[in-house]
Amino acid sequence: MTDSNLGRPPAQKPFRRILLTGAAGNLGRQLRGALAAWADVVRVTDIAPLGEVAAHEEASIVDLADEAAVHALLEGVDAVVHLGGISVEAPFEDLLEANIRGLYNLYSAAQKQGVRRIVYASSNHAVGFHPTTSVVDIDAPLRPDSLYGVTKCFGESLSRYYFDRFGLETVCLRIGSSFEQPKNPRMLVTYLSFRDFIELVRCSLFTNRVGHAIVYGVSDNRTKWVDNTKAAFLGFRPQDSSVEFEHLFPVTAPTAELDDPTQRFQGGAFVLAGPMEPRR
Amino acid sequence: MTDSNLGRPPAQKPFRRILLTGAAGNLGRQLRGALAAWADVVRVTDIAPLGEVAAHEEASIVDLADEAAVHALLEGVDAVVHLGGISVEAPFEDLLEANIRGLYNLYSAAQKQGVRRIVYASSNHAVGFHPTTSVVDIDAPLRPDSLYGVTKCFGESLSRYYFDRFGLETVCLRIGSSFEQPKNPRMLVTYLSFRDFIELVRCSLFTNRVGHAIVYGVSDNRTKWVDNTKAAFLGFRPQDSSVEFEHLFPVTAPTAELDDPTQRFQGGAFVLAGPMEPRR
Amino acid sequence: MTDSNLGRPPAQKPFRRILLTGAAGNLGRQLRGALAAWADVVRVTDIAPLGEVAAHEEASIVDLADEAAVHALLEGVDAVVHLGGISVEAPFEDLLEANIRGLYNLYSAAQKQGVRRIVYASSNHAVGFHPTTSVVDIDAPLRPDSLYGVTKCFGESLSRYYFDRFGLETVCLRIGSSFEQPKNPRMLVTYLSFRDFIELVRCSLFTNRVGHAIVYGVSDNRTKWVDNTKAAFLGFRPQDSSVEFEHLFPVTAPTAELDDPTQRFQGGAFVLAGPMEPRR
Amino acid sequence: MTDSNLGRPPAQKPFRRILLTGAAGNLGRQLRGALAAWADVVRVTDIAPLGEVAAHEEASIVDLADEAAVHALLEGVDAVVHLGGISVEAPFEDLLEANIRGLYNLYSAAQKQGVRRIVYASSNHAVGFHPTTSVVDIDAPLRPDSLYGVTKCFGESLSRYYFDRFGLETVCLRIGSSFEQPKNPRMLVTYLSFRDFIELVRCSLFTNRVGHAIVYGVSDNRTKWVDNTKAAFLGFRPQDSSVEFEHLFPVTAPTAELDDPTQRFQGGAFVLAGPMEPRR
Amino acid sequence: MTDSNLGRPPAQKPFRRILLTGAAGNLGRQLRGALAAWADVVRVTDIAPLGEVAAHEEASIVDLADEAAVHALLEGVDAVVHLGGISVEAPFEDLLEANIRGLYNLYSAAQKQGVRRIVYASSNHAVGFHPTTSVVDIDAPLRPDSLYGVTKCFGESLSRYYFDRFGLETVCLRIGSSFEQPKNPRMLVTYLSFRDFIELVRCSLFTNRVGHAIVYGVSDNRTKWVDNTKAAFLGFRPQDSSVEFEHLFPVTAPTAELDDPTQRFQGGAFVLAGPMEPRR
Amino acid sequence: MTDSNLGRPPAQKPFRRILLTGAAGNLGRQLRGALAAWADVVRVTDIAPLGEVAAHEEASIVDLADEAAVHALLEGVDAVVHLGGISVEAPFEDLLEANIRGLYNLYSAAQKQGVRRIVYASSNHAVGFHPTTSVVDIDAPLRPDSLYGVTKCFGESLSRYYFDRFGLETVCLRIGSSFEQPKNPRMLVTYLSFRDFIELVRCSLFTNRVGHAIVYGVSDNRTKWVDNTKAAFLGFRPQDSSVEFEHLFPVTAPTAELDDPTQRFQGGAFVLAGPMEPRR
Repeated sequence: MTDSNLGRPPAQKPFRRILLTGAAGNLGRQLRGALAAWADVVRVTDIAPLGEVAAHEEASIVDLADEAAVHALLEGVDAVVHLGGISVEAPFEDLLEANIRGLYNLYSAAQKQGVRRIVYASSNHAVGFHPTTSVVDIDAPLRPDSLYGVTKCFGESLSRYYFDRFGLETVCLRIGSSFEQPKNPRMLVTYLSFRDFIELVRCSLFTNRVGHAIVYGVSDNRTKWVDNTKAAFLGFRPQDSSVEFEHLFPVTAPTAELDDPTQRFQGGAFVLAGPMEPRR
Repeated sequence: MTDSNLGRPPAQKPFRRILLTGAAGNLGRQLRGALAAWADVVRVTDIAPLGEVAAHEEASIVDLADEAAVHALLEGVDAVVHLGGISVEAPFEDLLEANIRGLYNLYSAAQKQGVRRIVYASSNHAVGFHPTTSVVDIDAPLRPDSLYGVTKCFGESLSRYYFDRFGLETVCLRIGSSFEQPKNPRMLVTYLSFRDFIELVRCSLFTNRVGHAIVYGVSDNRTKWVDNTKAAFLGFRPQDSSVEFEHLFPVTAPTAELDDPTQRFQGGAFVLAGPMEPRR
Repeated sequence: MTDSNLGRPPAQKPFRRILLTGAAGNLGRQLRGALAAWADVVRVTDIAPLGEVAAHEEASIVDLADEAAVHALLEGVDAVVHLGGISVEAPFEDLLEANIRGLYNLYSAAQKQGVRRIVYASSNHAVGFHPTTSVVDIDAPLRPDSLYGVTKCFGESLSRYYFDRFGLETVCLRIGSSFEQPKNPRMLVTYLSFRDFIELVRCSLFTNRVGHAIVYGVSDNRTKWVDNTKAAFLGFRPQDSSVEFEHLFPVTAPTAELDDPTQRFQGGAFVLAGPMEPRR
Repeated sequence: MTDSNLGRPPAQKPFRRILLTGAAGNLGRQLRGALAAWADVVRVTDIAPLGEVAAHEEASIVDLADEAAVHALLEGVDAVVHLGGISVEAPFEDLLEANIRGLYNLYSAAQKQGVRRIVYASSNHAVGFHPTTSVVDIDAPLRPDSLYGVTKCFGESLSRYYFDRFGLETVCLRIGSSFEQPKNPRMLVTYLSFRDFIELVRCSLFTNRVGHAIVYGVSDNRTKWVDNTKAAFLGFRPQDSSVEFEHLFPVTAPTAELDDPTQRFQGGAFVLAGPMEPRR
Repeated sequence: MTDSNLGRPPAQKPFRRILLTGAAGNLGRQLRGALAAWADVVRVTDIAPLGEVAAHEEASIVDLADEAAVHALLEGVDAVVHLGGISVEAPFEDLLEANIRGLYNLYSAAQKQGVRRIVYASSNHAVGFHPTTSVVDIDAPLRPDSLYGVTKCFGESLSRYYFDRFGLETVCLRIGSSFEQPKNPRMLVTYLSFRDFIELVRCSLFTNRVGHAIVYGVSDNRTKWVDNTKAAFLGFRPQDSSVEFEHLFPVTAPTAELDDPTQRFQGGAFVLAGPMEPRR
Repeated sequence: MTDSNLGRPPAQKPFRRILLTGAAGNLGRQLRGALAAWADVVRVTDIAPLGEVAAHEEASIVDLADEAAVHALLEGVDAVVHLGGISVEAPFEDLLEANIRGLYNLYSAAQKQGVRRIVYASSNHAVGFHPTTSVVDIDAPLRPDSLYGVTKCFGESLSRYYFDRFGLETVCLRIGSSFEQPKNPRMLVTYLSFRDFIELVRCSLFTNRVGHAIVYGVSDNRTKWVDNTKAAFLGFRPQDSSVEFEHLFPVTAPTAELDDPTQRFQGGAFVLAGPMEPRR
């Protein structure tokens, strides 16, 4: 990583340098291009290969659990979009390193480097044990549906602390299912189009003040399990809907399995996925 | 009624057999055709003549207060849309037979026959004594505006019990005013188009899990007295509005009758309609 | 029943005539004596024998399902304490007659006779399907735990209607377990001493205005499942507690039966008691 | 002012005579024309010159602090749209005369003259000390951001009293920023188009019953700090949005001034504007 | 008024100088002695004669509407207990001078003089139009029952503004009926013993931080219309109760006047007392 | 550790074997004796020396971060009282091992061993960034005041997951300040007497069902920042109060430091204690 840009003239774009973690992942790849319009320099990082690096980009392979590397990574950064870490159920030891130790490293470094804002990829799995027969707003009690979800709750608490303690702002995005298209009927409810995902990040970066905010990342789907009314100060108004994909999942009578937890709870299959055995 | 279909091969449509009560009524007639697309067999019933019976239909005249007949009626049924009973203010004795005894018979039989879900025509008259200067959500305290409304409260309680006790799911539709068009200014607020009514039933039948749900049945009218936010898991998004009928009721200054209960309360004329004397 | 007192001089006691239904029952026998201090005439009624009739009493055997008899019963009455009807799970047909038809008869007659207030024995079984790991206040959603509980919900709705429609006031007492002493560990939570029961009726009769009120009838027991904060305008402050009976139930480790509904829900054994088969 | 219209035949328009105060101001000039369609006579008043007076208008220059003049002003009036008084921060003495004494004069006269409804221009500055990282509904606690805002709270309390005491209805419009176009980034959030403002007044005048209502006056802007859900009974559905003006304010990174009150609170610059020294 | 104490050595008592307004009134006379223990100097003021002045006291007759006099009055003051102004319904002009202009003068001067805290005698009449069949907490919507009550709402808004704007803390005491003993049955509910009143002021002065707080001033009476749960951070635990005075008001049946506003609303006779004609 | 008791006859005490972690700490030493009455075997553990081991005790030194040791520790255990881990602000690395990895080990092992219930020492520092001018109930949003507090939030989320996923019950005790006596004025609010602490554990162990419960551990102090109303199903009724210690902290005027975070927030000095540098 080079800091050759650190002494250059005033920025022409709104942000001077945005850090994108998890840049090689599913959502990171979507966002990487969009960031070019918002920052003079886009610093991208991941533990996986990052592909071709554009002129406005700085790329580095960093393990978030590596404290020193993370502190170096945050130098000269205005804002962070943190998509890094593990985003599925995994053995606790792995989650501990990536999503707990890694997140602490990120916040500790961000605070020391004077970063003003972090957009944090939390997840609807932080509240996935709420029933599918309810609608949760952003104040709903935490109900993680997996050890992964527990680490997302940790991230929301840790970022809350850094805001209350140091004024470091965070928007926690409780992202649903952001893929090209829904892969099963449940994702008709949790679908977040790539376009709406990018818009959500844009709102999170550019809203003048966000404090410590929580917002659900879902498109304007027909069926809703979540309610963003209290997050309306972020200005997120999704433009897409999973309605166009409903034909992929032919209409059926409701399942009769009243006790099937993957149907009873918003988290779907996650509620049964863990805890996973360590890989040793 | 014949059960000749009971042994046939797996259904081609989502439901094998749906029972529609009140099939000869105002809303029953609207829904009857739509059900054909959703069930192999549509069993229709009423105490009034049912007209021509289609090939996919089974028709029978049944008094809901007749316990044995109702138990027979529920045989082989997957799901019920219950529009039967009395839907206006009436002498208590009549309401008792149709809406209380009749409803118990229906639920008792449905539970014994293994029915999984009932869509129950409740009414906004279960909450009609809320003022017209308020907006009620689905958790608002019950405020029946008539003995009819009291029986709808009974139905919501009874169906709640059958869900908590046996897992028999119900969606209680608090239907407003579902006619070709609004008949008076109040109905501009309570109007539910036939198309939106059918869509509401569709959502109620096909949402994977509904538990015991309550939802207001109104179109997307300009003025709202009700708020379905917490029922968004049903996916009901009305497409129609009473705006197109506003020209029927020329603009006037507000009435000066501050104490007129039919203007003060959401139930309108129902709040003064009862109790009615028995017909003897 | 005689109405020989109807033309007599102004009352010396607060009430001229109070009607007590269910006077031969468990709680009726407790209350009957106390009423003497509050009304010149205490009209007592039941379907069971009423024992010796005091000078200030009027006694009559009346089936609440007998409309004409109930209308006669209400003549000249200022206020009613309605303990009559069935207070346990029973076949629906029996509940229908006693708790639904009978209650309608009572309210219909009371309204016609100009009665100002009814103290109605509702029950905690109207909300018995709330979990034992929660505390319900008087606005909690109805969750009847039995057909009996459903009829108590009916009574709360019917009395609400008579208040909103006619101004006839009711206090709904959601009585817990009012016996000499708790009979099992659950009753340590739901215990209402006879003394506190009488005080609760006193508050309900003498508070200047009650509108349509709901209040839980429990003593100041150590463990609480209910919260009367919003009913504090009634002035009910229990003096007794089940603490003195805790020694009757030796301390044990919690039961391991996580799925035992009688332990999971506040209604206890009621949640499994019904529906009962008719006695035919 | 002439009352030559007082004895004329029944009105052809919904209202016979509407009084518009503050008719010479920014919003008064917008509304003045629209009122012609709704009332036979539009009585316009201000302390500033009122320009040309149309045939259907009655014009008079009145200081609201002049009790006798205000009582004369209200004669023969059906309804009032009260935009008069001071609408920015000002020395307390000035606010006292215009917004406190003046408002009392208006309500006192309106009640004596039998006026049925007042549409009162309150302000979002009654709640301007709520943070920009929150969304306030119409029940949110009052948080005035200026002495001006305090007088608007006074107006909401005074009008509540006149409703509870005399049934005189008021709709309090918490108007945001109603200009041709937003003048700064904050106004992208608080913008109310002139068209939506007129529609809001129309809803406030014509809804059959309003009781004492509070509603936020903002267009359907992308970012929202307010929530009108509970005021949906007024039927106000804004048609415009500040989105079309977003290009006027180029995108920038969020300001770093975490302690800048004009960014932290919804009231913007108002939160620092006062108290102002008297003009002596 | 002398400021001869301004240069003296560090205080021996917690406060150096407390200002007590309304010192000659009913409650002022009760509190005046108690303040001696808490402040080196007690500055007492009223528009009525103040009686004998103790060695630790500074006395002055000041009209709160006299801006210059009020600014002088606040010099050198640490904290204020503001009982001054009018505490009953009165002509608006009088309330305007004493409770609006006077209160503004007090806060304006206090802010300029660096006063840290004001204990403000608000009133339950700020919420007196809530029904007697409800229990209001400290967040309940304002419902003033009189013009007097409206001025108390003004005081709560004004003091909120001074806290949000300048950090000047206020505890608003919504005092019930504080007399030697209750004078009517309503006061059994609103009674605040003198001892509890003094304790309430003590808590308000000595709690480390109060922000802008609202608390009901009632003793631990049997019947409650108010709920201080959310103000428990003030540590106010009343020791007295009106129970000892219940014998003064013999038990009677509830009044039959359902529409009597003085029985329907918590404000009692205040709800009909105004608006009063000016005295001219 | 020996499991020689595993095959013995049915327990004479309510629990067969309770595990107490943190047994050598401040609270562990208080509780250790009390447990003898409730369990045949009390297994005590800590990383510090455990002193004399009684006949009914099994003692072992275990580092909670040692997975295998923790799994062995949980064998044959009915219930756990988990006081172990770090209970003050500390470097993140230490907290990670003791309070995050250690807690996961505990829950993972408990679930595998079939433990039914864990009493978990959470802390009021999980909500310590709520202001001292508020009262928080058990549903209040998490506001950790330190990295230590963040780990307590983690524990509450993790235990919630184990309950929703496996039915393993937990009571989270948000313990205030439990020492012989309060050490500073703040602890007058947060004080939990040793006797009340033991009673709180007793309630948590013996309440028949607790689900996943949260309860504040404070005595019945005069000033309250917390509200246990919704946890009343646990039956915890504190008997002690810090009132007896108020004389230790002479009355003073409130501090003038409006911006002092240790006075503004419930967490006191914790809010400034972290993050601490690692000890390397």
